[in-house]
Amino acid sequence: MGVHVARFKTGSEIRWGVVQRDRLVVIPGQYATLAGFLGEGAAHARRLAAAPEGETLAVRDVELLSPVTAPCNVVCQGQNYRSHMLEVGQDPEAKNFNQFFRKASSSLTSGHGDIVKPERVRMLDYEIELGLVIGRPLSGPCRVERERLHEFVAGLVICNDVSARDIQLAEGQWYKSKSFRTFCPAGPYLYLLDAEDNARVMNLKLHLSVNDQTRQDSNTSEMVYPPEETLSELSEVMDLFPGDLVMTGTPRGVAAGHNAPKNAKWIKKFLTVVMSEKELTQLVVKMQTRNPAYLKEGDVVRATISSPDGSIHLGTQESRVVAAGRASA
Amino acid sequence: MGVHVARFKTGSEIRWGVVQRDRLVVIPGQYATLAGFLGEGAAHARRLAAAPEGETLAVRDVELLSPVTAPCNVVCQGQNYRSHMLEVGQDPEAKNFNQFFRKASSSLTSGHGDIVKPERVRMLDYEIELGLVIGRPLSGPCRVERERLHEFVAGLVICNDVSARDIQLAEGQWYKSKSFRTFCPAGPYLYLLDAEDNARVMNLKLHLSVNDQTRQDSNTSEMVYPPEETLSELSEVMDLFPGDLVMTGTPRGVAAGHNAPKNAKWIKKFLTVVMSEKELTQLVVKMQTRNPAYLKEGDVVRATISSPDGSIHLGTQESRVVAAGRASA
Repeated sequence: MGVHVARFKTGSEIRWGVVQRDRLVVIPGQYATLAGFLGEGAAHARRLAAAPEGETLAVRDVELLSPVTAPCNVVCQGQNYRSHMLEVGQDPEAKNFNQFFRKASSSLTSGHGDIVKPERVRMLDYEIELGLVIGRPLSGPCRVERERLHEFVAGLVICNDVSARDIQLAEGQWYKSKSFRTFCPAGPYLYLLDAEDNARVMNLKLHLSVNDQTRQDSNTSEMVYPPEETLSELSEVMDLFPGDLVMTGTPRGVAAGHNAPKNAKWIKKFLTVVMSEKELTQLVVKMQTRNPAYLKEGDVVRATISSPDGSIHLGTQESRVVAAGRASA
Repeated sequence: MGVHVARFKTGSEIRWGVVQRDRLVVIPGQYATLAGFLGEGAAHARRLAAAPEGETLAVRDVELLSPVTAPCNVVCQGQNYRSHMLEVGQDPEAKNFNQFFRKASSSLTSGHGDIVKPERVRMLDYEIELGLVIGRPLSGPCRVERERLHEFVAGLVICNDVSARDIQLAEGQWYKSKSFRTFCPAGPYLYLLDAEDNARVMNLKLHLSVNDQTRQDSNTSEMVYPPEETLSELSEVMDLFPGDLVMTGTPRGVAAGHNAPKNAKWIKKFLTVVMSEKELTQLVVKMQTRNPAYLKEGDVVRATISSPDGSIHLGTQESRVVAAGRASA
């Protein structure tokens, strides 16, 4: 049985706790950052999970925070599920590379908080993703194998890669559209990975709903590039540090794929000839703003990631969409 | 007269110094990070520049390091010079947004060091850019004005946004292609910005040569989005911290623009119809690998940024291209 932990606020204090059903066993010590927690704090958590003792609190009595703390590196995989590529008019056969992009770590926010919709954003979308928390420094090329994943990945967390599709489509590079503050709800729970979990990472159910209507329902088994390949390639490119976050892409069901024409690829080819790139983008944005699947003020997004037997359960993420200037926090 | 500083290694020690022609006045204290230096260290530097005292060293006797230290946020502007957009087949009139992307801060390296060409990269390119070092935390929307730039920007630095064009073209998102280790030579000198410099930031000469052949020769006056607009928009999106780096885009003259057909835009439109995206990319990469302007092992890239009167001079960046596995450091 694995160990689930949470970072939370009680009064003015920020603490960490081991999740036991609807209660938290408070972990001794103060850890300002996830990196700081991963050593001693995580060791405490494993001991307390085996033999709970000391103070406990009801989950409903605390304010759950993102277990991933900023600043850190947030690296994301693009188009890592075939079903998502197809829904947004991409050809999975043509993509023979693992696509990376970044989100600002200041977009990290509680898994039980608000997604603030900036005034300029018209097409606000969601993307459930499995997040990998890095557990050790990677400062040079390194071959990561599935059987040793737990040596590199400290834990797993639910992430929502919230995206301003209008900006994403118009600007080409995705960084800005995915980096607004609150655009990365993370948590509520961090699952500490053990050796026996390595094989299970590729069989986790992902589920996301908007106002209780199912939008995304998939399994990590559908990933094109599994975590060991992703981390191996990332290690060839950049340094990673404990507490960094790697987001592994989203399956089908995002708002942008809602009612998309089946022949979108060919329509786009045709329009590319008769229109400028700017005109084409404007047309797509105009058509898409009528798409009712995008997030609106008041919408509630719920997301879960769990193993089929329920022994890994990253909690239920619950975010409310609010207009800028009306955030409750 | 402004203050130029350098970060350097002498023996096993890393120190900071005020640049005075070919000598460095050693600044008291140890500062492990640029953020750490910007408070007390920068104040020392200003005092020493006015009244030099204490230990001095010859610049040629030390190992110059990047004044920008990792980890930090490295945020880049895409296509911020009209002349560069034209040379790579983009339409400046169609771009009505400030494009942002990221480089990994682990790509930062000395302005007097090696650019390591990964084995997989065939189209290695350079991009001279003016780098802005952030001087104070930006944690919410903020209106930055040209006259107050020095309150937000601690200093200026030469950066080379080294890019693997084959990966950039094939993968669409630019992060990976621009993030390999050593792909961001920075320095050698950091110019500490004062109130009287604010207007001068938009009149700096940029010059880059490869093996003493001029490739880029431009002026920051050609920027489409000046620093105050860029920082204002970034502040609406993300948090920035002292010591972070904002790179302001490159002018014409990159290898990718070498001998590009004038009607590239129309050729691309035509080929988009008859070929798949993957085939088109493969064709471009095949044609471009014969382009002799890309960087090869042994090439020496020199870059300077200075004011017309020479009172701002960010030093001469000198990088040698080496094949992976043969780096001298």
